[in-house]
Amino acid sequence: MRAVYYHGSKTLVAGEAASVPPGPGEVRIRVAYAGICGTDLHIYHGHMDARVTTPHIMGHEMSGVIEDVGAEVNGLQPGDRVTVMPLHPCGDCPACRAGYGHICHRLKFLGIETPGAYQTLWTVPAFAVLPIPESLSLELAALLEPLAVACHDVRIGAVQKGELAVVIGGGPIGALIAFAARENGARVLVSEINPYRLALLGRLGFETVDPSREDVAARVNALTGGAGADVVFEVTSSAAGAELMTKLPRTRGRIVVVGIFSKPPAVDLHRFFFRELQLFGARVYEREDFVRAIGLATSGRLPLASLITDILPLERLADGFKKMESGGDAMKILLRCAE
Amino acid sequence: MRAVYYHGSKTLVAGEAASVPPGPGEVRIRVAYAGICGTDLHIYHGHMDARVTTPHIMGHEMSGVIEDVGAEVNGLQPGDRVTVMPLHPCGDCPACRAGYGHICHRLKFLGIETPGAYQTLWTVPAFAVLPIPESLSLELAALLEPLAVACHDVRIGAVQKGELAVVIGGGPIGALIAFAARENGARVLVSEINPYRLALLGRLGFETVDPSREDVAARVNALTGGAGADVVFEVTSSAAGAELMTKLPRTRGRIVVVGIFSKPPAVDLHRFFFRELQLFGARVYEREDFVRAIGLATSGRLPLASLITDILPLERLADGFKKMESGGDAMKILLRCAE
Ligand SMILES: [Zn+2]
Ligand SMILES: [Zn+2]
Ligand SMILES: [Zn+2]
Ligand SMILES: [Zn+2]
Repeated sequence: MRAVYYHGSKTLVAGEAASVPPGPGEVRIRVAYAGICGTDLHIYHGHMDARVTTPHIMGHEMSGVIEDVGAEVNGLQPGDRVTVMPLHPCGDCPACRAGYGHICHRLKFLGIETPGAYQTLWTVPAFAVLPIPESLSLELAALLEPLAVACHDVRIGAVQKGELAVVIGGGPIGALIAFAARENGARVLVSEINPYRLALLGRLGFETVDPSREDVAARVNALTGGAGADVVFEVTSSAAGAELMTKLPRTRGRIVVVGIFSKPPAVDLHRFFFRELQLFGARVYEREDFVRAIGLATSGRLPLASLITDILPLERLADGFKKMESGGDAMKILLRCAE
Repeated sequence: MRAVYYHGSKTLVAGEAASVPPGPGEVRIRVAYAGICGTDLHIYHGHMDARVTTPHIMGHEMSGVIEDVGAEVNGLQPGDRVTVMPLHPCGDCPACRAGYGHICHRLKFLGIETPGAYQTLWTVPAFAVLPIPESLSLELAALLEPLAVACHDVRIGAVQKGELAVVIGGGPIGALIAFAARENGARVLVSEINPYRLALLGRLGFETVDPSREDVAARVNALTGGAGADVVFEVTSSAAGAELMTKLPRTRGRIVVVGIFSKPPAVDLHRFFFRELQLFGARVYEREDFVRAIGLATSGRLPLASLITDILPLERLADGFKKMESGGDAMKILLRCAE
């Protein structure tokens, strides 16, 4: 089988690899498609070398078919079409004991702390494997992991029918949040500067605003008679996003912080006082979010296919990163892993 | 009658004043006691000159007895012992229409946008007047307004029995939050640097920590088996407080921002992601918080009297400000207004 190995900052080597037979409680999956995520790009740039051991196989968004199962695995068998919820909680820390395994204090993330999906055959714990319906294509199923992120964010934001949701940042996660918020009945405005993404989201029926050309708060006030947005998703991890997010919500409005900030930005806490704003951090997903994502993707109601801008052979991971960084016409890039 | 007038930065003039007869829907109150608040200190320093018109009479925490009532006032009569909820919402903005008059977009605060309680006779709208029980002394009733703030903060923080609440800042509002959180059944730790306040809060049965001498996060982790605090109140409006507040909560823990930040501090949004923290802005109070404050104060269960460190004649307002700024042995300072 084949794999792509990360050897250190910006060094990727594709080559033959030895597959890991599934041990007790494990499942080996023939990976069909694996998405490239911003986290993988961070690893590629060497920013997460403290968490990965080289040579490292990245990748945690995927779809595939079970190749074989180890001992003590129930309910899964060869030939099952599946995706993976790539979390391995410790089961024993205060967060796990409180029922929040997805924020485990010692969480292992499959594909970061363990080898990932950028290989032909991926061996993972059976508890992380989720079957998918026959009617869901393996291409779209590779989007289930980021869609589960979006479902989690929208659930944390408690988006209601008739509300105005503003998404700051219209990349893949922002777009999927827009999809999930619209499914909840919200009107959605996406703030984004990339022209390709703006045009795509516009074609998909979302209202869009380019913050480099227009005052987003003025737009939101015009849409709401001066009241402000019900809920705002910050997905850019930028100082500008952190500044914008507090200007938009209505009295008692909600902000969901989705972006992963590498340093603490200035945040207008006076505005939190003044409008009694609420802010919620959101991290990955819980099982119910994955179940919701599978249901939504299978329903056919989401324009998921429109987000897949490229499908590249596994060996061309570096080209995928290059395209993501170009700031050009990219949304979600998939790797074809099993050929 | 007498009043103290603010004429501009650090200029106070005490003197005779003409009382305002109550118009339709108004009530004139003989002020018994009026508390000095941090907001009054801000006005005194000229920081709020954009909101006040000089000469200005400050003061919004008070108790008193109704002197006379204007036309169209029902349910209130001369001789009634009362306090004032000093909010005048517009009734017509998006916040008011959503039922959040206390965060009205055009809120007038009695004693800031209108003349306040630092006078013998104070004329206010009848809707702002709340009767108090015979059994509640007028001294303690002057603490009802800040106690209502604390009740609001604790309600926004949804403090539950058995939880650990940490209060960052042990001044009058922080102490009252500690009282109200303890009434909800929480264990309370107060972080404060002033030795007088630390000793007082310790005598009142609260756990205390001096952040200049001890690692507050280590203390919280030791108290909770590494889990973290359930709820944290930030009452200092300082960069240090904004930094500390994100270090303390458990997974999905809550932060209530009570302090009024004059500039946006750095906030560790990564920690919000990492532990799925929640942050709630809190502003003044709603009517139910005042009702709760009156009930708690009247119950006799709160050591409110211990917070009153000084009772000065109205004319000595400047001395009150001086003592508040000394960083010394002050907690709540009252002015005796009606003599
Ligand atoms: Zn990802
Ligand atoms: Zn754990
Ligand atoms: Zn006050
Ligand atoms: Zn209003």
